Amino acid sequence: MCQEFRGGSQQLPTHVTGLGGLSSTSRVPRAPGRAVGPQQPLTRVGSRVSPARGVPAAPAPLRLCLSASGAGGASRAGRGSERVLRWPRHPREAPRPAGTRGDTAAPPGQRDGAMDGHTDSSWLGAPLEQLPTPALTLDLATLRGNAERMRERCRELGLRLRPHVKTHKTLEGAELATGGSRRGIVVSTLAEARFFAAGGFDDILYAFPVPRWRLAECSALAQRLQRFQVLLDSPQGLEMLLQNPLPGGKRWLVWLKLDCGNARAGIRPTDPEALSLARAIAQGSPELVTLVGVYAHCGNTYGCRDIVAIQAIARDTTAAVLEFVTALRQAGIPCPQATIGSTPSCSHPVPEMSQLTEVHPGNYLFYDLQQTQLGSCRPEEVAIRVLSRVIGHYPHRGQLLLDCGWAALSLHGRDRGPAGCAAIEGHPQLRLVGLTQEHGLVEAADGRLEFERFPLGSTLALIPFHACATAAMHPVYFVHAAGKVVELWRPVRGW
Amino acid sequence: MCQEFRGGSQQLPTHVTGLGGLSSTSRVPRAPGRAVGPQQPLTRVGSRVSPARGVPAAPAPLRLCLSASGAGGASRAGRGSERVLRWPRHPREAPRPAGTRGDTAAPPGQRDGAMDGHTDSSWLGAPLEQLPTPALTLDLATLRGNAERMRERCRELGLRLRPHVKTHKTLEGAELATGGSRRGIVVSTLAEARFFAAGGFDDILYAFPVPRWRLAECSALAQRLQRFQVLLDSPQGLEMLLQNPLPGGKRWLVWLKLDCGNARAGIRPTDPEALSLARAIAQGSPELVTLVGVYAHCGNTYGCRDIVAIQAIARDTTAAVLEFVTALRQAGIPCPQATIGSTPSCSHPVPEMSQLTEVHPGNYLFYDLQQTQLGSCRPEEVAIRVLSRVIGHYPHRGQLLLDCGWAALSLHGRDRGPAGCAAIEGHPQLRLVGLTQEHGLVEAADGRLEFERFPLGSTLALIPFHACATAAMHPVYFVHAAGKVVELWRPVRGW
Repeated sequence: MCQEFRGGSQQLPTHVTGLGGLSSTSRVPRAPGRAVGPQQPLTRVGSRVSPARGVPAAPAPLRLCLSASGAGGASRAGRGSERVLRWPRHPREAPRPAGTRGDTAAPPGQRDGAMDGHTDSSWLGAPLEQLPTPALTLDLATLRGNAERMRERCRELGLRLRPHVKTHKTLEGAELATGGSRRGIVVSTLAEARFFAAGGFDDILYAFPVPRWRLAECSALAQRLQRFQVLLDSPQGLEMLLQNPLPGGKRWLVWLKLDCGNARAGIRPTDPEALSLARAIAQGSPELVTLVGVYAHCGNTYGCRDIVAIQAIARDTTAAVLEFVTALRQAGIPCPQATIGSTPSCSHPVPEMSQLTEVHPGNYLFYDLQQTQLGSCRPEEVAIRVLSRVIGHYPHRGQLLLDCGWAALSLHGRDRGPAGCAAIEGHPQLRLVGLTQEHGLVEAADGRLEFERFPLGSTLALIPFHACATAAMHPVYFVHAAGKVVELWRPVRGW
Repeated sequence: MCQEFRGGSQQLPTHVTGLGGLSSTSRVPRAPGRAVGPQQPLTRVGSRVSPARGVPAAPAPLRLCLSASGAGGASRAGRGSERVLRWPRHPREAPRPAGTRGDTAAPPGQRDGAMDGHTDSSWLGAPLEQLPTPALTLDLATLRGNAERMRERCRELGLRLRPHVKTHKTLEGAELATGGSRRGIVVSTLAEARFFAAGGFDDILYAFPVPRWRLAECSALAQRLQRFQVLLDSPQGLEMLLQNPLPGGKRWLVWLKLDCGNARAGIRPTDPEALSLARAIAQGSPELVTLVGVYAHCGNTYGCRDIVAIQAIARDTTAAVLEFVTALRQAGIPCPQATIGSTPSCSHPVPEMSQLTEVHPGNYLFYDLQQTQLGSCRPEEVAIRVLSRVIGHYPHRGQLLLDCGWAALSLHGRDRGPAGCAAIEGHPQLRLVGLTQEHGLVEAADGRLEFERFPLGSTLALIPFHACATAAMHPVYFVHAAGKVVELWRPVRGW
């Protein structure tokens, strides 16, 4: 397997992670200071654990350090007297809800009787501890809180929230984010557009410079939906729409993409061509094309170091957009809508944003380590974890091996802060120092790893740096409440 | 969308990429020096292209700069006189082979009549130029050559080739790699094991420290297959197998994982426990467990800078493995097999490796930019590309925008050499300088980007840094021969 990155703690600062302050909103009752095994009855062993030797007491309350199993690591570390070596039952041996099978879209070989993988709905109702790892888990209460807080924030500003779905790419996530309306979302691929259209969503904005080589697909969506909207930033894009009118008197609904400093797609509002392009969209062939509004993405907020800097970009972006809309109106060009977005800017909106009509953040439903570092959310608002188990002890090099590599986490965040690709929940003294395809290497920041606290089979919950990238690696998300799997979400993939 | 990395060419050295020497084994007849559009009839425009202005002549012959379309970029750049602005036909309007639909496992919304995404088999027979982008393509002749060369290399050394399938994760790839025998592969996940078992493969080695929480799945595979083999590196792993015997007198087939310097999983052969563990596997309960052999992965070859260093590691690893096997035999412990692997070491094997019984490389079927940098392969042996199209021109910042972000490429390689995450085939003067989820930013190394050479809709072929990571992002691979799609390969995912 290809080595992708590896380093000792010399490559990662040894101070505690930015998540040291993770608060104690435990989802599963857990013993403090001990990561323990997955498929055994919960055993509270915390009070029997010897005090940490040579490691400062973990400053953070624990949240998802799963239940006790004992076994391997114990005898290896010679301190397992309170643990009993028992084989976990395969979850399929446990009672499971009736009628939960057969609805999986898993590829061949994953639907094969007793050899089912974890895309199988038989995991519904299972305790988190039983999930095969690596597993992407989502805390339902946190998701709901994130969705509600963003909606409330927008209500207060008088803005419509048009959530971007590209982080989760699931019907269930978009249902939550739209408050059940299934109306008004942003997608980044046509695969998403089709998936959500088939799932009963409408008012879908395909926020990607409309590609002419996929115009037939856009046209089919525009005919199928009440409001399928496209985005463009060039006269060529408009010319393409004009040459390919929608049948039945329907009009192309167009957003003009503005680049207000993010420097990706978009025409700069200060570019003289911007106004003439807006005019051409709005007035060139009003029977064929309608200018819905202007759209700016302030992804440059991800380069900020604090909320003040994020808000400065949000303010500048808002001002640039509104100035452009004002110029349009002064020129007699109707532009009903104006939207900006990015999770950092929408998590701490500036009052000026209330003059827009919409915002379109996406990541906020899950949040992630990066967003905590940016100040977008509190640690307890991060809904996503990747559960992983300890599969090896290597005392001679002071390392644990996890069954989670970049195939379950991505390499995002590798060089972005002390925790790198993921923080390890409840264990600020641990560092994820290497990832290959299916393996992760963990060290203690001070080099003194207490192996007896992490026996083979122990579950560790990883808080990924970038939820969008981690979610993209998983065919199913395990949504949990009260410590049990209550929903399986299956994202759409591809383009 | 979350900004993930971005930089001007100041962040990437401006000298030409390591792929400057890409040879001219064109798969699709192309006009030199011009990246052109996707869905138009092929038009040879090379001879009519003005000489590059202010940019040194591209040193590399071109390979996959797709056909001419003209359109947007042309009029924007003011040099489109020889091109005709025509709308591409959607490929579904073109004749396609009968009986090629309905066999897709695409999720809901991707199988929806005229709105099909590109997981649909209707792309069989389509010219590469028509593929929706981003698209992962594989050159069939190159795949076959890579498979045959590795088999030939092993034949010469008297070694069995047990290909690792984790790069491609497809039945078709493993069929090629095993020379059609469907016997003798390595997998890295149980999802792969089940997938290949269901696909008629046998003699499958699950090369991952056998996790006790998934033992029931391993047991089912061991009962189903003639030779399902597991790997362990600890007494706990063995104890688990002994406590969970296979029914019907079948024995667990076990490889002992050795760590010969790679420092991931494995017991060090110099560790006194290694010999006692091997003895316990071989002789502890021979009616329950059999020691098949010893297994070492020399992933540390990926840290090398040249073939000499790779071969030194291969030699050391081989010596360590053979020394251990000799010690076992001297102690009366039978150890029939010994294997090492990694694509770098197996691409330039040292003679000592002939004393092993097997090798288990995987990446070599595709190869990638990283392997060319390591010296494992010649550029023309890289079978994988990600096709992408130009979706925006931003002359004020000297950038093109591509419809390929990290969701289609991964971030692997970002800081690993001048080309970063991908080289752009046939255009050594171009640099991929930024990737967000669905967008890529391209600049000219010398800052003088000739936009007229890359009109909107132009197709660029990206040579990914790490094929394993890029392949993991795609639900389907388009395998091509003579410029047309001849097979669709669908990988297994998950765990």
